[in-house]
This record gives sequence, structure tokens and C-alpha cells, in this order.
Amino acid sequence: VESEQLVGLAEIRDAAKRIAGLVRRTPIVPTSLGTASSPLLLKAENLQVTGSFKARGAGNAVALLSPEERARGVITHSSGNHAQALARAAREAGIHATVVMPRQTPDVKQLATLRHGARVELVEPSERASRVEEIRAETGAVFISPFDNPHIIAGQGTVGLEIFEDVPELASVWVPVSGGGLISGIAAAIKALAPHVRIIGVEPELAGDLAEGFARGQRVTWEAARTGRTIADGLRVQAVGELNWPHITAYVDHVVTVSEDAIRSALRQVVLGCKLVSEPSGAVSVAGFLEHHAVAGHGPAVAVVSGGNVEPSVLAELLGAESERARESG
Amino acid sequence: VESEQLVGLAEIRDAAKRIAGLVRRTPIVPTSLGTASSPLLLKAENLQVTGSFKARGAGNAVALLSPEERARGVITHSSGNHAQALARAAREAGIHATVVMPRQTPDVKQLATLRHGARVELVEPSERASRVEEIRAETGAVFISPFDNPHIIAGQGTVGLEIFEDVPELASVWVPVSGGGLISGIAAAIKALAPHVRIIGVEPELAGDLAEGFARGQRVTWEAARTGRTIADGLRVQAVGELNWPHITAYVDHVVTVSEDAIRSALRQVVLGCKLVSEPSGAVSVAGFLEHHAVAGHGPAVAVVSGGNVEPSVLAELLGAESERARESG
Repeated sequence: VESEQLVGLAEIRDAAKRIAGLVRRTPIVPTSLGTASSPLLLKAENLQVTGSFKARGAGNAVALLSPEERARGVITHSSGNHAQALARAAREAGIHATVVMPRQTPDVKQLATLRHGARVELVEPSERASRVEEIRAETGAVFISPFDNPHIIAGQGTVGLEIFEDVPELASVWVPVSGGGLISGIAAAIKALAPHVRIIGVEPELAGDLAEGFARGQRVTWEAARTGRTIADGLRVQAVGELNWPHITAYVDHVVTVSEDAIRSALRQVVLGCKLVSEPSGAVSVAGFLEHHAVAGHGPAVAVVSGGNVEPSVLAELLGAESERARESG
Repeated sequence: VESEQLVGLAEIRDAAKRIAGLVRRTPIVPTSLGTASSPLLLKAENLQVTGSFKARGAGNAVALLSPEERARGVITHSSGNHAQALARAAREAGIHATVVMPRQTPDVKQLATLRHGARVELVEPSERASRVEEIRAETGAVFISPFDNPHIIAGQGTVGLEIFEDVPELASVWVPVSGGGLISGIAAAIKALAPHVRIIGVEPELAGDLAEGFARGQRVTWEAARTGRTIADGLRVQAVGELNWPHITAYVDHVVTVSEDAIRSALRQVVLGCKLVSEPSGAVSVAGFLEHHAVAGHGPAVAVVSGGNVEPSVLAELLGAESERARESG
């Protein structure tokens, strides 16, 4: 991929104008989790419509469809936040959306996607791609990847514009990485505005495909059985996208990994200390900062809390464990 | 109390300047909980330092101490958010704070107050007031009431200034009521700026002393055994303060009550739908809007989520119940 194919600041600024009426400008929330030299602030994308940053990219991609494409509708496969985001963006635009989901997708996520007006079809995980192809062939629906798409990257990049506007003195941004759409967009925006700001990708150790690939200088893929073990259900994608890889190699300074215990501990701190409901994936950035802040040097750090769509039972279990701990130590 | 003794807009504006460096300007968070004619927005004071709006009043009251009073330090009795807020405000000002707490206060609240640098003393609930008197006599410490104090009211009123600045088109504000410090300040600010905006106080049915008194036109006191039954532990005060009562009769339009079930349901919606960690008391305003929005007429409504200091076990139990329900209905 040539550098002229990378998403640029102008496209991200255009995306910001395009989606201004569709998404929220989420707040920056201060915390007491930082160090003396690096205060930590959270970009609260858990407060975004549909509960995650995915509404930005989906909104931009849908807005850029041609009239002819709009008539055909959109399709994606996702069990997660992109499904809800695309469903909502399509409904806002008055077009049809189809989401192909693995049969195992939790009820609450199936229901949320249906509630946003999409047609949902459940399939065996192995049939996901082929079923999407069949529906595309039948209906002509436009496939919108959750991350491997320049309009998605430009939309997610609006998170970076807002961070820089609200915290112009920032020194680092910490971003959870799965397919790489969010970090590609944020990095493209921030490096164009302030090249000295460090961009740090954070992955669970159990889904550390980018950390491995970044160290080796070559995009790698991990097996689903391997990435599927992390509690961070939004970060189980097996490799960053083909278009995301060159953005990451061009703009990202470090990729670090965190243990499952570190993710659980960070999630408890975000919920009980910062009073924000995060999903496990959303707290991975905070875990990364807490373990690795030395790599970023001094100055304010912003961690992106990417989403808040946590299963009630997962959160209850985590908080139950917390009150156990409080009783024991009390 | 004569109207010239009520806290006015000028004092609230002065308070805002005085505490600007000590507290956060909390965000307004949109929700999907409103009606077609009345969108509902949340004023997220759960994201305030010390986890509640109490930091505002305490910050203002401490800043207004004379040098001679500062030397003597401050004292209060509180098992809740005012304790942490006063402890922090005192530490920021470099003065001593003593908090007398009932022996039954949960460990986490004792620890949080200690961590903010206060001297904490545990007593039998019945000895609370007498022990405060003893310490005042010994040390000359200045007593700072959680609500019945003009500087506290002016500090809490800064919530109203911010709401009006961020949502100038608002039609109503919904405020949880306990001793009445928060609603007194907010109502004084908003009615001075926009007299047409409806101010609605919300209480648990189980702690509905103000609702009863407001209807009868006379301040009433409920027994602690009665108010102690609500899950909204921040709203168990037995009566509004003497200085709060005339603010409320002058400026508040309605006082409504909500059931324990309505509080639990609103709390689940704030946590799972709006992604904000609220304490039960903080969701009482949302419960009030959901049940009684007709009293406010059309236009944007702002509910104050007053704090986020919820016991992990209480939240876990509530979310556990939620996932039970999802399983049953799924």
C-alpha cells in the first residue's frame, strides 16, 4: 500500500462534518489513575450512541454510499459493536441492513441489533463468510467491513480529532486493538496534527497478533481458538486488516500486551473508581497505560474507553469478586 | 427566613469561580430514555471528584473560611458523600478535617474518607451529635453541615449554572432530595436565569418527608427507622434543613416520589443503557422523570445523577438480577 492510499487528515475532517448530527461528541473524563508526570484521562466512547465508537465509522461509511448503493442496502458479519452501529446508521439513512451473526452470539447482542432495525440471520460460525457472499449475490447489498475500509478508518479517526481538540497538550494516546480500525484512524489524525504524540496500541496477551506482527515487521494471523480465550470479547479478531496494517506501521509507536488479570483489574478501576461502565475490551487501553506508561514518556495520557456493551453477568461477576475481596481485606 | 436570606445568583457565580480549580465541570450525557417531546439528558455528577456533587459545596465552604477558622480545622458528621468531599476539600486547602461516622458505616466509605486525609472517628449513631459537640468544644473546629449552610447551597448551585450553560433550551430539572442542599442551590440558580424552567424534587416513597411537607406547606420530619428502609442510602436524611426549606418553597415546582422498584429499574437503565455508574440515590432523579414526566410539560429534561459511590455488592446484585431476567425472558 502506498502512503497516498493511507487515510489522511482531510478525509477524517470530512468524516467529522458528515457524522456530526449522527453521533455524540463524547467527553474526556479525568481520573486519579495517572502518575505524577502523566495524568491519565479517558476518552469515554462507552457513552457513544450504540455504546461504542463503531457508530462513527458506520455512520461515515453509510453516508458515503451512492444512491444506487443505498437502494441495494448494506451487509456485514459481526457479533459485536459494529453490528449495532451499522444497523443504526442504516436505519438513520433509511436503508436496509443485514447482519450475519454466529449462532452463539449472546441474546442481548442479537436483540440490540434487531432493535436498531437490521435483519439478523444466525449461521454456524464456519458459514459466516459464505452466507454473506450468498446474500450479496442475491441482493447486491454492499459489504461494509468492521475495520478494513477507508471510510470506516476515517470515521473512527474523528475520535483522534476530538481528543486533540480537548487535550492539546497530550503526550500519548492508548488504544485497544482488534482489527485496527480505531487505532488506524486515531493515529492518522493525531500524527498529522502533532507528530510528537505517542500512539500506543494495546492488546490482550491472549490476542497479541499485532504485538507479534509489529515486532516482526510483518502482519500475522492468530487462530480463532487462541484469540477466543480473552475476556475482551471485542478484541478476538485474528489479525488486523490489510488496509489497517500500513496505517499501523506508518503511525503507531508501540504495541503492548496485557494479562487477563490486568484487564479485570483495570475494568474494576474504570467502573468503581472512574464511574464509567466499560466493556472488558474498553478497559484494555487503561490496563496498557497502568502497566506500560514508561514507554510514553512524560505528559498527559489519554486512554480510549472504546465501548460499554458489557454483559450484565460479566460485570456482576467482576463486582461480586470485588466485594469478596473487600470483605477479606476488611 | 426572609427572601434576602436566600442564596442568590451572585453567590452561586462567586462559588463557581472559587471552586473552578478544585472540581470538575461534569458532562451532560444524552440518553434514549426520554419521550418524543421531552428528551432526557443526564448531568453526570457521578463523574465529579470524590464521586458526587458534594465536592462543590464542601470546596466552597472551606474556601470561605477565615484564616482563624482555617487554623481550627473543620468537622462534620456524615457516613456518606459529604464526608469524602469535606475531607478532600480540607486537604486541598491544607487544613485539618474530622469526620464523626456511625460505627455501621461500610468499610469502603470509612477507607475512602481516611484516604482523603481526614481524621475519622467511629461512634454509636446515637452519640454522633454529642461527640461532634465535644470535639468542637475541645478543638474549636468549625462545623460544616452537609446541606444546611448557605455556602454549601451556593456550591451545589454551580450544578445549576452548568446545566443552564450546556442546555439553555431546557424545560425541567429533576433532582434527588435528601437534606435539600443540591435542590436549593440548583433551583436558586435556574429560577434566577430562567424562571419558566420547572424544578422537580424526587424522593423515594420510603423517605418522602419533603413530599409530605411540601403538600402540607410545612416542613416535616420522618423517623430514621422509616427513611432507613430505602435502597437510596444517600437520601435517608429525616428532614430537609431549616435553611433549605425556604429555598424549596420559593423555587421548587413539584416534589414527587418513586417506589423502590422504580429506583432499581432506573439504576439498571442508567448503568446498562447509559453506561454511567450511579449509586441508587443518583438514579432516583431518573426514576422520577420516567414516572412523572407529565408534570413538567414539553421540552428537554435534565436529571441530575448526583453520585456514583455504589457498593460493589449492591451493583453486582442488581446486575445479577438483570442477567437472571434476561435468561428467563430469552
